Amino acid sequence: MKGYNRVALIGLGLIASSMAHAMRANGLAGEIVGHAKSPETRATAVEIGLCDRVCETAADAVRGADLVVLCVPVGAMGAIAAEIAPHLAVGATITDVGSVKQAVVEAVAPHLPPHVNFIPGHPLAGTEHSGPRSGFASLFVNRWWLLTPLEGNDPAAVQRLRDFLTGLGANVDEMDVQRHDLVLAVVSHTPHLIAYTMVGVADHLRRVTQDEVIKYSASGFRDFTRIAASDPTMWRDVFLTNKEATLDILGRFTEELFMLQRAIRMEDGAFLHDYFTRTRAIRRGIIEAGQDTAAPDFGRGVPPSDKA
Amino acid sequence: MKGYNRVALIGLGLIASSMAHAMRANGLAGEIVGHAKSPETRATAVEIGLCDRVCETAADAVRGADLVVLCVPVGAMGAIAAEIAPHLAVGATITDVGSVKQAVVEAVAPHLPPHVNFIPGHPLAGTEHSGPRSGFASLFVNRWWLLTPLEGNDPAAVQRLRDFLTGLGANVDEMDVQRHDLVLAVVSHTPHLIAYTMVGVADHLRRVTQDEVIKYSASGFRDFTRIAASDPTMWRDVFLTNKEATLDILGRFTEELFMLQRAIRMEDGAFLHDYFTRTRAIRRGIIEAGQDTAAPDFGRGVPPSDKA
Repeated sequence: MKGYNRVALIGLGLIASSMAHAMRANGLAGEIVGHAKSPETRATAVEIGLCDRVCETAADAVRGADLVVLCVPVGAMGAIAAEIAPHLAVGATITDVGSVKQAVVEAVAPHLPPHVNFIPGHPLAGTEHSGPRSGFASLFVNRWWLLTPLEGNDPAAVQRLRDFLTGLGANVDEMDVQRHDLVLAVVSHTPHLIAYTMVGVADHLRRVTQDEVIKYSASGFRDFTRIAASDPTMWRDVFLTNKEATLDILGRFTEELFMLQRAIRMEDGAFLHDYFTRTRAIRRGIIEAGQDTAAPDFGRGVPPSDKA
Repeated sequence: MKGYNRVALIGLGLIASSMAHAMRANGLAGEIVGHAKSPETRATAVEIGLCDRVCETAADAVRGADLVVLCVPVGAMGAIAAEIAPHLAVGATITDVGSVKQAVVEAVAPHLPPHVNFIPGHPLAGTEHSGPRSGFASLFVNRWWLLTPLEGNDPAAVQRLRDFLTGLGANVDEMDVQRHDLVLAVVSHTPHLIAYTMVGVADHLRRVTQDEVIKYSASGFRDFTRIAASDPTMWRDVFLTNKEATLDILGRFTEELFMLQRAIRMEDGAFLHDYFTRTRAIRRGIIEAGQDTAAPDFGRGVPPSDKA
């Protein structure tokens, strides 16, 4: 069959709610069962008809599910795994959507029984919004969904999960757990920390410039604030659980920044020009790789009336 | 009358070409005359009919113009001012579009005759593209155009320029020269330098991760590369000419980054969560100030087919 008979979504934020919409749109689940810790979130999910059934406990939600997706912050994965473990169906596939993988594997795997397949995953997709109302069916279309299969995973289970994710619109790729965490530290985690930092600096200055910083926020800063508006709990957990790789990349970043800062201080225009020319070429590489378009956009977006 | 009889655009990049389109769309110039240093740029301008007339020298272009707009990199402003000064019409208004203002005033003002009004300006608008083909008429719509009028400016000339810029679609505001440079260091210059730095770090790592960095560039990094694809010459000049303010803000940024880096190292989750919650509020301020929309966009943009 296409998809799964019963999919349990544990945690009902942006990713889970987008999965629910995408599963419905593509007919990939016989039944969608959901659970969230917060009663408000569960009430919202019922109100908007996000799932076929919303359960008060994670244990109830996973019963009889052939796919369980852990969509909670990375720091909450271990406790959830311990809670659901006794209730998992034989042969069920368990996956997660956490932004780091080593910490999730360490937190989750020891709790799970041998009769399930735990296949960690990470969709490279998101917006700065969160919660059960923020999901939309096309979130994963043409985005990468990385799987980091573990030793002992049943190849048929991995293939079935790949087919399911492809059905959601994603491009699926497999990667080693450690490599995933390093690559993500570069392309996502450290950029987020830097955006948070820059917005924090502006927040201090805002007090002395009477809201000029907000009023005149040009495109550079505006893009940063968008990044820095992401879910605080999720990002706290990302940095705490991908600590080593993030600190490594931050160290490289600081060295590099000091070099550019020195070039400004010494007025070394040639160095700056060379550097900026090199970074421009990387942008071209990303456009060619299909991860963005060349259309001028630079934080301006399209007029709100043109948005879906 | 609305607009000016003859507008001379010196330099034919993104801003000048967008001004040409916007002037035509809004009937704000009797004649548009253009000049660019490079013969290729001039040939392109002629080919696409960007101006009514393209001149080989800046001196020819400004003759008889009642508005002259300097659209060259900040580092080229002084030489251009010296070249055009003897040919400026009595009562002409001279403005510029440089991203820094103190350095432009120091480079340009000493060359100009007393019979013209030099009113420095800066449109807070742009994309990561450059050159005469990159302009479009709506670039300035609902964007700020800051003017930093100088002592001795004729108030009627300032008002006429304001009306003209409003006619291009911009929101015009006036600001002190020094304040402009500080505010822009926060909202634009330092964020650009940081984006360049992060993309530079990724460039080093790319060599060891076989293009994974480009392939999996998630939204955080993708936004950075867009920023870091901006014109290298323009940005070199920005940093060399707004050196003090940029170094000041960079110093604050580094202090702040070290605090967050330490929180990661010490695993101080409460500190990180508080910080990220605060930056999220700033984002809301920017949306309320109308500088961006709340629509989920996060670097994804709309499908290319929906773009103009």
